[in-house]
Amino acid sequence: MNSYLDNLNWRYATKKFDSEKEISEEDLNTLLEAIRLSPSSYGLQPYHVIVIKNKGLREKLKSASWGQSQITDASHLIVFANNTSFDADLIDRYLTNVSQTREIELNNLQQYGDFMKSKLIDLPNNLKESWTAKQAYLALGNLLSAAASLKIDACPMEGFEANVYNELLGLNDKKLNTAVVTAVGYRAAEDDTQHYRKVRQSKELLFTHI
Amino acid sequence: MNSYLDNLNWRYATKKFDSEKEISEEDLNTLLEAIRLSPSSYGLQPYHVIVIKNKGLREKLKSASWGQSQITDASHLIVFANNTSFDADLIDRYLTNVSQTREIELNNLQQYGDFMKSKLIDLPNNLKESWTAKQAYLALGNLLSAAASLKIDACPMEGFEANVYNELLGLNDKKLNTAVVTAVGYRAAEDDTQHYRKVRQSKELLFTHI
Repeated sequence: MNSYLDNLNWRYATKKFDSEKEISEEDLNTLLEAIRLSPSSYGLQPYHVIVIKNKGLREKLKSASWGQSQITDASHLIVFANNTSFDADLIDRYLTNVSQTREIELNNLQQYGDFMKSKLIDLPNNLKESWTAKQAYLALGNLLSAAASLKIDACPMEGFEANVYNELLGLNDKKLNTAVVTAVGYRAAEDDTQHYRKVRQSKELLFTHI
Repeated sequence: MNSYLDNLNWRYATKKFDSEKEISEEDLNTLLEAIRLSPSSYGLQPYHVIVIKNKGLREKLKSASWGQSQITDASHLIVFANNTSFDADLIDRYLTNVSQTREIELNNLQQYGDFMKSKLIDLPNNLKESWTAKQAYLALGNLLSAAASLKIDACPMEGFEANVYNELLGLNDKKLNTAVVTAVGYRAAEDDTQHYRKVRQSKELLFTHI
């Protein structure tokens, strides 16, 4: 069996974390670097990621997350916040980054920048917001498999009150919205769900070959 | 350097594929298994995946994809189609799967099923559709890192006419919509973009630590 698949089979949505175990600085950096290196449409990375260790804040967030213990018991909570809107600035900042990273004159990128702007800037706000959220989920997929590769447990969660998160994390002023959160750490020995068989659609149902 | 990160640094959005090179049956199965094992909200996998080798069909899809050569030159084209809507059926099929996989009486899952239904069924259709698309992007993230782990190249693409794809792939009748597609195969030696430096936000910009 391929080790990538072994890792995917090993992982599960951890329901109970061992609150005594912490992710090392080195491993946390690897997880964050996996998020940072995630592909996104045009490379624009239209999201921000908040990494929360502070227990007091996590207690408050737990109250806005159906009281789920993973929020506080895990080693860290990682919050993906997508841009609720954006303007030409998002693209201009990207172009400046391209220019500096690849040592290309900004002038030579203008045509490409105009193309991106023509595709993105006039989208209605609800489409902008769902597009940025999708990019955040792509990065989430990467985080989850990176964690599995390090045998770090994770629980991705959508069950929370985004407006409370946004308020507590000061996201509204930054035009950000909490899209999805993930608790990361180490499974508790007594978490029975680790022993459950994984439930997935059969390949016959999930795939069509043409 | 961690090998997971090495792989992410190795990958790039391949602009030109070697049209002579094909992904082996074994590697293709690994890629698809990575998609199949992807986590999704409640485990519902509200999407379908079409794996296209047929060149004639890909020629037609290329015309609906800004003429991008990756569509036909890559070894395979993988289309992620998310459910445009769903009803209790999606959850009931999942519960049947849980019941069979974990050998639990269906009756004992009813309360959990009712909970999922209460959260999902009454959502407005546009929210259902953006929620299913996000799950597909999570699976896309997994595909891209799985491909990198096998040193298989990939180009995720949003630049296509979804309505033409839906028509050609017969997705409309199945309440599916083309969310995102990915060409997979092997980079052409002459694809200059493989030598470009990767452009990403700095960790100082992308992350906030609390």
